[in-house]
Amino acid sequence: MDILIKPIGFIESPFEKKDEDMPIQPGFSDAFGTVIVNSEYLEGLSELDGFSHIILLYWFDQATEEKLKFQPYLDDVPKGIFAIRHPNRPNRIGLSIVQLVKIDGNKLLVKGIDVFNNTPLLDIKPFVPEFDIHGIEDTQIGWLADKLRKKENGG
Amino acid sequence: MDILIKPIGFIESPFEKKDEDMPIQPGFSDAFGTVIVNSEYLEGLSELDGFSHIILLYWFDQATEEKLKFQPYLDDVPKGIFAIRHPNRPNRIGLSIVQLVKIDGNKLLVKGIDVFNNTPLLDIKPFVPEFDIHGIEDTQIGWLADKLRKKENGG
Repeated sequence: MDILIKPIGFIESPFEKKDEDMPIQPGFSDAFGTVIVNSEYLEGLSELDGFSHIILLYWFDQATEEKLKFQPYLDDVPKGIFAIRHPNRPNRIGLSIVQLVKIDGNKLLVKGIDVFNNTPLLDIKPFVPEFDIHGIEDTQIGWLADKLRKKENGG
Repeated sequence: MDILIKPIGFIESPFEKKDEDMPIQPGFSDAFGTVIVNSEYLEGLSELDGFSHIILLYWFDQATEEKLKFQPYLDDVPKGIFAIRHPNRPNRIGLSIVQLVKIDGNKLLVKGIDVFNNTPLLDIKPFVPEFDIHGIEDTQIGWLADKLRKKENGG
Protein backbone atom coordinates (compact mmCIF):
# COMPACT_ATOMS: atom_id res chain seq x y z
CA MET A 1 0.00 0.00 0.00
CA ASP A 2 1.52 3.28 -1.12
CA ILE A 3 0.15 6.50 0.30
CA LEU A 4 0.24 9.85 -1.47
CA ILE A 5 0.83 12.99 0.52
CA LYS A 6 1.39 16.56 -0.61
CA PRO A 7 3.08 19.63 0.79
CA ILE A 8 0.62 22.19 2.16
CA GLY A 9 3.23 24.95 2.25
CA PHE A 10 6.83 25.38 3.25
CA ILE A 11 9.03 26.58 6.07
CA GLU A 12 11.45 29.48 5.73
CA SER A 13 14.41 29.38 8.08
CA PRO A 14 17.83 31.01 8.39
CA PHE A 15 19.52 27.65 7.70
CA GLU A 16 20.67 27.00 4.18
CA LYS A 17 21.44 23.49 3.01
CA LYS A 18 24.47 21.94 4.64
CA ASP A 19 24.78 24.89 6.97
CA GLU A 20 27.11 23.88 9.77
CA ASP A 21 25.37 26.19 12.22
CA MET A 22 22.08 24.33 11.81
CA PRO A 23 20.66 23.47 15.23
CA ILE A 24 19.96 19.77 15.43
CA GLN A 25 16.69 20.00 17.37
CA PRO A 26 14.19 22.72 18.31
CA GLY A 27 15.17 22.33 21.98
CA PHE A 28 18.54 23.77 21.03
CA SER A 29 17.27 26.55 18.77
CA ASP A 30 16.24 30.13 19.39
CA ALA A 31 15.98 30.76 15.68
CA PHE A 32 12.92 32.35 14.15
CA GLY A 33 11.31 30.90 11.08
CA THR A 34 8.24 31.50 8.97
CA VAL A 35 5.74 28.79 8.16
CA ILE A 36 3.95 29.65 4.93
CA VAL A 37 0.72 27.79 4.35
CA ASN A 38 -0.55 27.63 0.77
CA SER A 39 -3.46 30.06 0.45
CA GLU A 40 -5.91 27.27 -0.42
CA TYR A 41 -5.51 26.00 3.17
CA LEU A 42 -5.94 29.39 4.86
CA GLU A 43 -9.31 28.48 6.37
CA GLY A 44 -7.64 25.60 8.22
CA LEU A 45 -5.70 28.08 10.36
CA SER A 46 -8.86 29.41 12.02
CA GLU A 47 -8.45 29.55 15.84
CA LEU A 48 -4.86 28.34 15.74
CA ASP A 49 -3.73 31.73 17.07
CA GLY A 50 -4.80 30.84 20.60
CA PHE A 51 -2.08 28.21 20.90
CA SER A 52 1.40 29.10 22.15
CA HIS A 53 3.11 26.04 20.66
CA ILE A 54 2.49 24.01 17.55
CA ILE A 55 3.70 20.71 16.16
CA LEU A 56 5.12 20.94 12.66
CA LEU A 57 5.34 17.88 10.44
CA TYR A 58 7.48 18.34 7.37
CA TRP A 59 9.29 16.44 4.64
CA PHE A 60 13.04 15.92 4.97
CA ASP A 61 13.66 16.78 1.33
CA GLN A 62 17.42 16.91 1.88
CA ALA A 63 17.61 13.34 3.17
CA THR A 64 19.83 11.11 1.11
CA GLU A 65 19.85 7.35 1.32
CA GLU A 66 17.37 5.38 3.42
CA LYS A 67 19.33 3.51 6.07
CA LEU A 68 18.13 1.27 8.90
CA LYS A 69 21.21 2.01 10.96
CA PHE A 70 22.82 5.38 10.91
CA GLN A 71 25.31 7.44 12.81
CA PRO A 72 23.43 10.20 14.65
CA TYR A 73 24.77 13.73 15.00
CA LEU A 74 25.47 13.21 18.69
CA ASP A 75 27.34 9.90 18.66
CA ASP A 76 29.86 8.10 16.53
CA VAL A 77 28.29 4.65 16.83
CA PRO A 78 25.43 3.82 14.42
CA LYS A 79 21.98 3.33 15.98
CA GLY A 80 18.72 1.98 14.63
CA ILE A 81 16.95 4.67 12.60
CA PHE A 82 13.91 4.48 14.92
CA ALA A 83 16.14 5.19 17.93
CA ILE A 84 17.43 8.43 16.38
CA ARG A 85 15.88 11.47 14.74
CA HIS A 86 18.02 11.53 11.61
CA PRO A 87 16.28 12.38 8.29
CA ASN A 88 17.32 9.24 6.38
CA ARG A 89 14.26 7.25 7.49
CA PRO A 90 11.91 4.91 5.63
CA ASN A 91 9.29 7.71 5.62
CA ARG A 92 11.15 11.00 5.73
CA ILE A 93 8.73 12.84 7.98
CA GLY A 94 10.25 15.30 10.43
CA LEU A 95 8.66 16.71 13.57
CA SER A 96 9.40 19.86 15.54
CA ILE A 97 7.49 21.46 18.38
CA VAL A 98 7.96 25.23 18.10
CA GLN A 99 6.64 28.39 19.69
CA LEU A 100 3.93 30.17 17.70
CA VAL A 101 4.74 33.87 17.94
CA LYS A 102 2.28 35.43 15.51
CA ILE A 103 -0.05 34.60 12.64
CA ASP A 104 -0.36 37.06 9.77
CA GLY A 105 -2.74 35.68 7.16
CA ASN A 106 -1.15 32.50 5.84
CA LYS A 107 2.23 33.22 7.47
CA LEU A 108 3.14 31.91 10.91
CA LEU A 109 6.12 33.41 12.70
CA VAL A 110 7.61 30.67 14.88
CA LYS A 111 10.53 30.44 17.29
CA GLY A 112 12.77 27.44 17.86
CA ILE A 113 12.98 26.30 14.28
CA ASP A 114 15.53 23.62 13.33
CA VAL A 115 14.85 22.87 9.67
CA PHE A 116 16.50 23.93 6.44
CA ASN A 117 15.14 26.88 4.52
CA ASN A 118 12.29 25.94 2.16
CA THR A 119 11.46 22.65 3.83
CA PRO A 120 8.11 21.30 2.54
CA LEU A 121 5.37 21.50 5.18
CA LEU A 122 3.02 18.52 5.69
CA ASP A 123 0.88 19.35 8.70
CA ILE A 124 0.37 21.71 11.62
CA LYS A 125 -1.17 20.46 14.86
CA PRO A 126 -1.78 22.34 18.09
CA PHE A 127 0.59 21.21 20.87
CA VAL A 128 -1.54 20.30 23.87
CA PRO A 129 0.35 19.15 26.99
CA GLU A 130 -2.83 17.46 28.25
CA PHE A 131 -2.84 15.29 25.11
CA ASP A 132 0.82 14.93 24.33
CA ILE A 133 2.75 14.72 27.57
CA HIS A 134 0.11 14.17 30.22
CA GLY A 135 1.40 11.83 32.92
CA ILE A 136 4.91 11.81 31.45
CA GLU A 137 7.28 12.60 34.28
CA ASP A 138 10.29 10.35 34.44
CA THR A 139 11.72 9.69 31.04
CA GLN A 140 14.55 7.45 29.94
CA ILE A 141 16.36 8.57 26.82
CA GLY A 142 18.55 5.56 26.12
CA TRP A 143 21.85 6.19 24.37
CA LEU A 144 21.19 9.94 24.46
CA ALA A 145 21.38 10.10 28.25
CA ASP A 146 25.15 9.94 28.17
CA LYS A 147 25.28 12.60 25.50
CA LEU A 148 22.78 15.08 26.92
CA ARG A 149 22.21 14.68 30.63
CA LYS A 150 25.80 14.21 31.73
CA LYS A 151 26.60 17.42 29.91
CA GLU A 152 23.82 19.24 31.75
CA ASN A 153 25.14 17.97 35.06
CA GLY A 154 28.61 19.18 34.24
CA GLY A 155 29.86 15.61 33.83
CA MET B 1 4.81 17.74 -5.84
CA ASP B 2 3.31 14.48 -4.65
CA ILE B 3 5.21 12.42 -2.10
CA LEU B 4 4.94 8.66 -1.73
CA ILE B 5 5.06 7.12 1.71
CA LYS B 6 4.49 3.54 2.80
CA PRO B 7 3.39 1.82 6.00
CA ILE B 8 6.30 0.23 7.89
CA GLY B 9 3.99 -1.89 10.04
CA PHE B 10 0.76 -1.46 11.94
CA ILE B 11 -0.62 -0.80 15.41
CA GLU B 12 -2.84 -3.25 17.24
CA SER B 13 -5.17 -1.71 19.80
CA PRO B 14 -8.29 -2.67 21.74
CA PHE B 15 -10.31 -0.10 19.76
CA GLU B 16 -12.31 -1.35 16.83
CA LYS B 17 -13.59 1.03 14.19
CA LYS B 18 -16.25 3.43 15.41
CA ASP B 19 -15.80 2.22 18.96
CA GLU B 20 -17.46 4.74 21.22
CA ASP B 21 -15.05 3.97 24.05
CA MET B 22 -12.09 5.08 21.95
CA PRO B 23 -9.95 7.53 23.93
CA ILE B 24 -9.48 10.71 21.95
CA GLN B 25 -5.86 11.31 22.88
CA PRO B 26 -3.02 9.36 24.51
CA GLY B 27 -3.11 11.69 27.52
CA PHE B 28 -6.51 10.22 28.29
CA SER B 29 -5.62 6.58 27.65
CA ASP B 30 -4.22 3.80 29.82
CA ALA B 31 -4.80 1.27 27.07
CA PHE B 32 -2.08 -1.09 25.95
CA GLY B 33 -1.35 -1.62 22.30
CA THR B 34 1.18 -3.47 20.19
CA VAL B 35 3.22 -1.78 17.49
CA ILE B 36 4.25 -4.36 14.92
CA VAL B 37 7.11 -3.31 12.68
CA ASN B 38 7.48 -5.17 9.39
CA SER B 39 10.38 -7.60 9.73
CA GLU B 40 12.35 -5.89 6.96
CA TYR B 41 12.75 -2.87 9.28
CA LEU B 42 13.80 -4.87 12.36
CA GLU B 43 17.35 -3.52 12.32
CA GLY B 44 15.98 0.01 12.67
CA LEU B 45 14.77 -0.80 16.20
CA SER B 46 18.32 -1.24 17.49
CA GLU B 47 18.85 0.69 20.77
CA LEU B 48 15.25 1.91 20.89
CA ASP B 49 14.71 -0.16 24.05
CA GLY B 50 16.52 2.39 26.20
CA PHE B 51 13.76 4.97 25.67
CA SER B 52 10.75 5.12 27.98
CA HIS B 53 8.54 7.04 25.55
CA ILE B 54 8.26 7.05 21.80
CA ILE B 55 6.53 9.16 19.19
CA LEU B 56 4.34 7.19 16.81
CA LEU B 57 3.38 8.60 13.43
CA TYR B 58 0.61 6.72 11.68
CA TRP B 59 -1.93 6.99 8.90
CA PHE B 60 -5.53 7.89 9.76
CA ASP B 61 -6.92 5.25 7.42
CA GLN B 62 -10.43 5.71 8.82
CA ALA B 63 -10.54 9.41 8.01
CA THR B 64 -13.35 10.35 5.69
CA GLU B 65 -13.58 13.64 3.85
CA GLU B 66 -10.82 16.23 3.91
CA LYS B 67 -12.21 19.36 5.52
CA LEU B 68 -10.53 22.67 6.35
CA LYS B 69 -12.98 23.37 9.15
CA PHE B 70 -14.32 20.60 11.28
CA GLN B 71 -16.15 20.07 14.52
CA PRO B 72 -13.70 18.59 17.03
CA TYR B 73 -14.67 15.91 19.54
CA LEU B 74 -14.50 18.37 22.40
CA ASP B 75 -16.55 21.25 21.06
CA ASP B 76 -19.63 21.82 18.96
CA VAL B 77 -18.28 24.77 16.99
CA PRO B 78 -16.13 23.98 13.92
CA LYS B 79 -12.45 24.99 14.08
CA GLY B 80 -9.70 25.18 11.51
CA ILE B 81 -8.28 21.70 10.88
CA PHE B 82 -4.81 22.89 11.94
CA ALA B 83 -6.21 24.05 15.31
CA ILE B 84 -7.60 20.59 16.07
CA ARG B 85 -6.27 17.04 16.00
CA HIS B 86 -9.08 15.48 13.98
CA PRO B 87 -8.12 12.85 11.34
CA ASN B 88 -9.81 14.55 8.35
CA ARG B 89 -6.71 16.61 7.48
CA PRO B 90 -5.03 17.43 4.17
CA ASN B 91 -2.30 14.89 5.03
CA ARG B 92 -3.84 12.31 7.31
CA ILE B 93 -0.85 11.78 9.54
CA GLY B 94 -1.56 11.10 13.21
CA LEU B 95 0.83 11.50 16.12
CA SER B 96 0.80 9.94 19.58
CA ILE B 97 3.44 9.97 22.30
CA VAL B 98 3.18 6.68 24.18
CA GLN B 99 5.05 4.76 26.86
CA LEU B 100 7.33 2.02 25.55
CA VAL B 101 6.85 -0.92 27.91
CA LYS B 102 8.78 -3.70 26.19
CA ILE B 103 10.29 -4.70 22.86
CA ASP B 104 10.08 -8.32 21.77
CA GLY B 105 11.66 -8.70 18.34
CA ASN B 106 9.60 -6.62 15.95
CA LYS B 107 6.77 -6.14 18.47
CA LEU B 108 6.60 -3.15 20.78
CA LEU B 109 4.25 -3.22 23.74
CA VAL B 110 3.12 0.34 24.40
CA LYS B 111 0.85 2.03 26.92
CA GLY B 112 -1.40 5.02 26.32
CA ILE B 113 -2.54 4.10 22.84
CA ASP B 114 -5.42 6.01 21.26
CA VAL B 115 -5.68 4.65 17.72
CA PHE B 116 -7.96 2.16 16.05
CA ASN B 117 -6.90 -1.46 15.74
CA ASN B 118 -4.75 -2.15 12.65
CA THR B 119 -3.77 1.48 12.06
CA PRO B 120 -0.93 1.70 9.50
CA LEU B 121 2.36 2.75 11.10
CA LEU B 122 4.55 5.37 9.36
CA ASP B 123 7.40 6.12 11.75
CA ILE B 124 8.76 5.65 15.25
CA LYS B 125 10.92 8.34 16.86
CA PRO B 126 12.40 8.43 20.34
CA PHE B 127 10.69 11.03 22.54
CA VAL B 128 13.40 13.25 24.00
CA PRO B 129 12.22 16.01 26.36
CA GLU B 130 15.49 17.88 25.75
CA PHE B 131 14.61 18.05 22.04
CA ASP B 132 10.84 18.17 22.07
CA ILE B 133 9.71 20.22 25.05
CA HIS B 134 12.86 21.93 26.29
CA GLY B 135 12.07 25.42 27.52
CA ILE B 136 8.33 24.89 27.16
CA GLU B 137 6.77 25.92 30.43
CA ASP B 138 3.72 28.09 30.09
CA THR B 139 1.49 26.94 27.30
CA GLN B 140 -1.65 28.43 25.88
CA ILE B 141 -4.09 25.96 24.37
CA GLY B 142 -6.58 28.28 22.72
CA TRP B 143 -10.15 27.04 22.40
CA LEU B 144 -9.21 23.87 24.32
CA ALA B 145 -8.49 25.80 27.53
CA ASP B 146 -12.18 26.14 28.27
CA LYS B 147 -12.75 22.49 27.55
CA LEU B 148 -9.82 21.00 29.46
CA ARG B 149 -8.41 23.32 32.09
CA LYS B 150 -11.65 24.60 33.60
CA LYS B 151 -12.66 21.01 34.10
CA GLU B 152 -9.39 20.27 35.89
CA ASN B 153 -9.93 23.22 38.16
CA GLY B 154 -13.42 22.09 39.01
CA GLY B 155 -14.96 24.94 37.00
